[in-house]
Amino acid sequence: MLAAAGDLLLAEGMAGFTFERVSAISGASRTTLHKWWPSRGALAAEAYFRTVESTLAFPDTGDIAADLTEQLLAFVRLVTGTTAGRVIAELIGSSQTDPELAAAYREHYSAPRRALAVAAVEAARDRGQVRVDVDAEAVVDQLWGACYHRLLIPDQPLTEAFARTLVDQLVHGLRTREITPS
Amino acid sequence: MLAAAGDLLLAEGMAGFTFERVSAISGASRTTLHKWWPSRGALAAEAYFRTVESTLAFPDTGDIAADLTEQLLAFVRLVTGTTAGRVIAELIGSSQTDPELAAAYREHYSAPRRALAVAAVEAARDRGQVRVDVDAEAVVDQLWGACYHRLLIPDQPLTEAFARTLVDQLVHGLRTREITPS
Repeated sequence: MLAAAGDLLLAEGMAGFTFERVSAISGASRTTLHKWWPSRGALAAEAYFRTVESTLAFPDTGDIAADLTEQLLAFVRLVTGTTAGRVIAELIGSSQTDPELAAAYREHYSAPRRALAVAAVEAARDRGQVRVDVDAEAVVDQLWGACYHRLLIPDQPLTEAFARTLVDQLVHGLRTREITPS
Repeated sequence: MLAAAGDLLLAEGMAGFTFERVSAISGASRTTLHKWWPSRGALAAEAYFRTVESTLAFPDTGDIAADLTEQLLAFVRLVTGTTAGRVIAELIGSSQTDPELAAAYREHYSAPRRALAVAAVEAARDRGQVRVDVDAEAVVDQLWGACYHRLLIPDQPLTEAFARTLVDQLVHGLRTREITPS
């Protein structure tokens, strides 16, 4: 059922995503759908997560900069190369005025994905690859958050080169290379 | 007129922001409003910008880390300490499905503010305070974009401590302090 709902969502965006359409293509009754999901937004958030989950696995090669780059590139390719980008932008947009969608989005998508990235950064810290006082949660905002910023407010393009720059600038810092960090 | 519209927007959010209400409080006729703004979203974006503009001036003390921190803290205080945070989240949310609002938001708010931050970073680069190959546009996404990420998808809190961490991690980088950057 969620697979069918996810296909509909990616094909038509939120505009064509209704309980009626999901019921028609999945065979589940509207009563059943309403029983499990409080709103079409909540259903859309969970369907989106299930559909893109497999493409967003977090690699672990032991090299944190390489792993962050690889995962960020996979994310950028998903949101720029498929209809997933428009759908996720609409989900985040609608979540600003739909509390049930916002809760479902965080529970099924953003919180678990954030946790995977935080765990990877903390493992790198424990291996001595990043500074001991790293704020792993803030790293997520400075990499993925930066990409969402360009997705939602497209003043500048969201590209693979941009993703690589994000990792480079954050890992190495902005200071002039000749100066040793204090 | 824009000042009156901005006051209404901050008081009631997008839900109470209509051409009719703006006409009633400003004295401008609805015909006039429609002539100048193609949609209520476009009017809201411009009214928002005019209202918060003065609180978001970019400081220039010659110390880029201090200036970035000060400006980012002013932004965090505005969006967490006043109703502006909810309004800007609703404007960005609505802009995902309202092209006229999206265009007005970029023209009157996000693009000019981005340009101010980019100019500050490039001036710091020319003074030798940051690396010569700095991508100033990406810096905006790694500081302000990171804050918008927490505003729009509140998995983690948007605080002044977070803003300070963003600048610290980006300026100094994530690498272990004992290792000199290559």
